[in-house]
Amino acid sequence: MNATSLLVDAADVRSIVERIGRDALMDSLIARLTEAIVRYDPTVAQVPPRRGLHYRTPEWGLLEWMPAHFGSEGTMVKLVGYHPTNPERRGLPTVISTISLFDASSGHLIGLLDGTFITALRTGAASAVASRVLAEPGSRTLGVIGCGAQSVTQVHGLSRLFPFDRIIAYDIRDDVARTFRERIGFLDVRVERVRRESLMELLAESDILCTCTSAAPGEGPVFPDFANKPHLHVNAVGSDFHGKFEVPVALLRRSLVCPDFTEQATDEGECQQLQPGEIGPDLRTLVQHADEYASARSTPTVFDSTGWALEDHVAARLMFDYAREVGAGRHVAIECLPPDAKDPYSLLRAHEVVTAAAARTAGPPL
Amino acid sequence: MNATSLLVDAADVRSIVERIGRDALMDSLIARLTEAIVRYDPTVAQVPPRRGLHYRTPEWGLLEWMPAHFGSEGTMVKLVGYHPTNPERRGLPTVISTISLFDASSGHLIGLLDGTFITALRTGAASAVASRVLAEPGSRTLGVIGCGAQSVTQVHGLSRLFPFDRIIAYDIRDDVARTFRERIGFLDVRVERVRRESLMELLAESDILCTCTSAAPGEGPVFPDFANKPHLHVNAVGSDFHGKFEVPVALLRRSLVCPDFTEQATDEGECQQLQPGEIGPDLRTLVQHADEYASARSTPTVFDSTGWALEDHVAARLMFDYAREVGAGRHVAIECLPPDAKDPYSLLRAHEVVTAAAARTAGPPL
Repeated sequence: MNATSLLVDAADVRSIVERIGRDALMDSLIARLTEAIVRYDPTVAQVPPRRGLHYRTPEWGLLEWMPAHFGSEGTMVKLVGYHPTNPERRGLPTVISTISLFDASSGHLIGLLDGTFITALRTGAASAVASRVLAEPGSRTLGVIGCGAQSVTQVHGLSRLFPFDRIIAYDIRDDVARTFRERIGFLDVRVERVRRESLMELLAESDILCTCTSAAPGEGPVFPDFANKPHLHVNAVGSDFHGKFEVPVALLRRSLVCPDFTEQATDEGECQQLQPGEIGPDLRTLVQHADEYASARSTPTVFDSTGWALEDHVAARLMFDYAREVGAGRHVAIECLPPDAKDPYSLLRAHEVVTAAAARTAGPPL
Repeated sequence: MNATSLLVDAADVRSIVERIGRDALMDSLIARLTEAIVRYDPTVAQVPPRRGLHYRTPEWGLLEWMPAHFGSEGTMVKLVGYHPTNPERRGLPTVISTISLFDASSGHLIGLLDGTFITALRTGAASAVASRVLAEPGSRTLGVIGCGAQSVTQVHGLSRLFPFDRIIAYDIRDDVARTFRERIGFLDVRVERVRRESLMELLAESDILCTCTSAAPGEGPVFPDFANKPHLHVNAVGSDFHGKFEVPVALLRRSLVCPDFTEQATDEGECQQLQPGEIGPDLRTLVQHADEYASARSTPTVFDSTGWALEDHVAARLMFDYAREVGAGRHVAIECLPPDAKDPYSLLRAHEVVTAAAARTAGPPL
């Protein structure tokens, strides 16, 4: 058995995105995610809610793990750090992540990938999948509240499915709102920036609204209730922590609220604000029975996106498959698999060197 | 900031063990683990009990995660697969593991290492640390029940501290017991193998006893109660799953039973068989107050070893430090840290290639 792992590093991700193209990448991910949700079988799959260590020494930080098992399709763990002082103190992103893919039969690590880019990508794709079921197909105006990293892939994912001719953007930080137009320049859609005093205009004119702020726990909602278009669809993306939410409860209550993953959304999402009876179908139910929910397109709807490990698994698998297709990544023999399984020190035997060296330089087949 | 990760692969582990020597490696680990336990501060450190996904598709398997945070000393996650059909079906070990080390300030992955060899090593070192407090220092006869991978490092770790002149070994599989002598040949101690019918002899003559079987849940205990030497110390290593234990409850009840990590041992260890009031001090209390427990050396004692993530962290850090010392390992820029933290697609910008390439070939300083 070739027991190497394919290491897909940052430069590999870059070369995959370049070779495949970001539109084709997003389209493939939306298609694969839809298929994976249609196929999702809760009698086989296991996706526990995200858990983490939250610490205050050496400073405030959070390390979370998102494990998931999908039967013969594999097992995955995403590890995610959330360290809000990174940008200012270290020139690093707030969220840094890696993903380990395992062969579910043996527990062998088949791939190790960056999870930071994948997280942004899959969050955009998830909103696209939910919006295809819930939003008015002819939606032309997209409102964006919070113009950080997640907003870029939100707008990208949605623009693959909807004929937007106008994006109205707001961010609490003026400089972030200002650079947004440039960051989504590749989409060739008219972008209007509004200030706090014109926020109601953004809200009133949106067919689809994305909220992807980093409002702190206890600060939400990030906008007041308002007279929404009858078919307004909201992708609420920013909630991912206890006490953190973005959408006014009155709007939630008159909308069909669909969480990505109910158990997690009631802990960390907009669903924290609702009673169990006020929560609609989850993303799986929605996609598996899309026809039944088509009528919801003409009524207010909310996709409560907290981040479902299925999305990470599908996105990581896609990058992994592309890496093999374009010859990106390196095979590394990281696990010590000694020649005598009953003797840890047998790794010292000479022929082990040969095996490890051979594995290290082995070709594509895994 | 140099945001690369040091990848320490199987060949690197081999070259570290060769360069440092297995005795020096075990001695360093025992010393570092003792220091780390003395320093352990529960008001800063967070070590949740091990949790896992237990599945039956495509076949019986278990994937576990062991996260831990130690303040400014770092954060770690060990991922461990347990797939019992590996040796026969795939020529792979039952337990396969990798360890991710994080900078606790930023969540940046500083190191990725094999966890399989480290697990065997640290389990041996942990028994040595516990036995130094609890066992008779002049112990000459070591009994071993279960002669698989863990037994090798148990015997190695203990032999660094005790003047054994005799090891008596038993395994339910005759071939495993037979090869044991050869596997611990590097220790130069007389090894006697006993069959099932002479197990009582092994038990009666042991000053220290190690149980490291893979008895299935519900099968234990793996030996009957017996007339033990008054100072018998048992290192019970095999229990690591609900319903799995090795030691007869009567022996536990007349012994001072010290778990590595109480919360986990009452779930998965020998402590499953006991009431809370019957459980003695944990490894931390034992080491931090070793003098108070010196009198226990002349009475029966049991170290209930389920595997504490502190041990993994110390062992992984030791390998990581040795890798830097001997120039083993490779620096890889796995995390996508785009030039504009607010734009995931900025990784496509030309200068990112330069950064990633530079990081990839960067020298030792992390």
